[in-house]
Amino acid sequence: MDDVRFAVLGTGGIGRRTLEVSTEKAGVTPVAACDRHGIAVDRDGLDIEELLAATEGNVASDGGAGAVKQHGELSGVAASAQARPTETPIDDVIAESDDLDAVLIALPNLEHDFIPRVAERFADAGYEGVLVDVLKRSRVIGMLDDREATLREAGITFVCGAGATPGFLTGAAALAAQSFVEVEAVEIWWGVGLKSGYRDNRGTVREDIAHLDGYDIETARELTDEEIEEIVDAHDGVLEFHDMEHADDVLLERAGICDAEDVTVGGVLDVRSDEKPTTTTVRVTGRTFDGERGTNTFELDDDTSMAANVNGPALGYLKAAVRRNRTGDYGVYGPAELMPGF
Amino acid sequence: MDDVRFAVLGTGGIGRRTLEVSTEKAGVTPVAACDRHGIAVDRDGLDIEELLAATEGNVASDGGAGAVKQHGELSGVAASAQARPTETPIDDVIAESDDLDAVLIALPNLEHDFIPRVAERFADAGYEGVLVDVLKRSRVIGMLDDREATLREAGITFVCGAGATPGFLTGAAALAAQSFVEVEAVEIWWGVGLKSGYRDNRGTVREDIAHLDGYDIETARELTDEEIEEIVDAHDGVLEFHDMEHADDVLLERAGICDAEDVTVGGVLDVRSDEKPTTTTVRVTGRTFDGERGTNTFELDDDTSMAANVNGPALGYLKAAVRRNRTGDYGVYGPAELMPGF
Repeated sequence: MDDVRFAVLGTGGIGRRTLEVSTEKAGVTPVAACDRHGIAVDRDGLDIEELLAATEGNVASDGGAGAVKQHGELSGVAASAQARPTETPIDDVIAESDDLDAVLIALPNLEHDFIPRVAERFADAGYEGVLVDVLKRSRVIGMLDDREATLREAGITFVCGAGATPGFLTGAAALAAQSFVEVEAVEIWWGVGLKSGYRDNRGTVREDIAHLDGYDIETARELTDEEIEEIVDAHDGVLEFHDMEHADDVLLERAGICDAEDVTVGGVLDVRSDEKPTTTTVRVTGRTFDGERGTNTFELDDDTSMAANVNGPALGYLKAAVRRNRTGDYGVYGPAELMPGF
Repeated sequence: MDDVRFAVLGTGGIGRRTLEVSTEKAGVTPVAACDRHGIAVDRDGLDIEELLAATEGNVASDGGAGAVKQHGELSGVAASAQARPTETPIDDVIAESDDLDAVLIALPNLEHDFIPRVAERFADAGYEGVLVDVLKRSRVIGMLDDREATLREAGITFVCGAGATPGFLTGAAALAAQSFVEVEAVEIWWGVGLKSGYRDNRGTVREDIAHLDGYDIETARELTDEEIEEIVDAHDGVLEFHDMEHADDVLLERAGICDAEDVTVGGVLDVRSDEKPTTTTVRVTGRTFDGERGTNTFELDDDTSMAANVNGPALGYLKAAVRRNRTGDYGVYGPAELMPGF
């Protein structure tokens, strides 16, 4: 496959690390990146080392406590020598989109329909290419489906939920299902030890807190950093989640693998330790054509970080989507639909 | 995806069971099947139950010891009420190929270039669609590549090595690699307990014996059934294999995941027990972008049979290939290339 030229919207934890991973991957060239107040573009390929150094501490996009290197108007992407300040970063990326094969939308948990609306803006501007997000909310998938005709008409291939879970583990479930003619249960259980702590992973931690009892995405969005730190403290840094509304369920259902209610997602997040508090595992139980019942298992090494398991797959699905896009295969897809058919 | 209409070449163990699995899968309709002396075609969908009952014991295609239900000219597929005898079964399927989306080539280990030559015949006849094989030999992939221009020009999407290994486990390795920016080792270790014994799995056992020290594909082909039984007896029914020339290596290399020499394949075949003699496992070891080293693992339940793990994935890759073919994506692909990009 020819080189894939891509942009990243958002330079929080996920966006920044995807840029970093891409420097070690063949066949992908980052040519644009933006955050709320800046955009960097280089059609010959961004100097990621310089960009990352300049945006270090930029994870909250608001000049939080970690933003030691820059402040004010020139914090974040704008602090890079390759960048310019802007108040319309998404429009500015859209303006460059003729040159793009793919855009990774790595924006934090804003309104439910924020990412669908961003997709629509690309479609309205005549962008033909791939959009990938790493969202985690089941209900957002439906909002993307509502816009499928618009995206398809524009020539956009949209992959939703292409991080770790949903994403990597959804794909693993889809593959593990191949032994079976009927899938009875998919159990996704993740462990994350955030080496870099809350301050370097604000978007992810906030998104996860929205899954705790008593919180939802709206209330989590309103929390101050201090309130989040308090919640984390109250749990001694270890947050355990059960029955999460994590889009794996609807993504496996739309691929025809099982019903959404047969999918359970949970996990443990430790923001105070390098070590994963539990092993990330996908278990798929089903019935074989010859009348047996079994459980296939996919297990990630405890030494692979959340960042590695989000950003590798995000780029992997992005590449798969570019291949489809180039043959005129447009529309909205989940990760499981980019796997062997069930 | 619209219904996939497919044919099966060969009604040995793999062909017959793929037909059986397909009756429990959505979106696939078997419309033709053949063996050496007969072809069954029904454009409304074959009656698989009748066909399988009529071909029971037909696994050696030569009226072997298991061929209890029929003999002589009407053995095999020709014994089905839906079939007719023929001495040109492949040409007869080609004659029906306007109506086909996909053809599964489930033929036993004949000459190395047999399957590439079959593919070429389909191309020469103007077939546009998918061809899938379940071959296991690394060197055959190159022979297919030699014919890629011909296949591409005809409008054929060829997926090679789409059974269990290579196939299912190659795909699992490709997915497990997504945590890493560099893959150091892929270890595929399989266990097969052939419930149905040697007599019902002649092609598979013969192919495996070719991997034993002192044998190759040519000498294995020349063995009589009695000689194979003797080899099996000499090993008390349990054959252990190491460093097999199993196409996973070249298929992972062509997907850019690792070098062929970083892939090792081995396993244990027990032809006398229902139980798997060892657990089928894929271990992928690599380096993450953030400097860790880890091993991701994919494990099949011991209660999933070889048949389930060959035929489910074969149909799964077939469906994925039909999707590609319909968008004009032609050429030769291994299973790992149908996964997220690396």
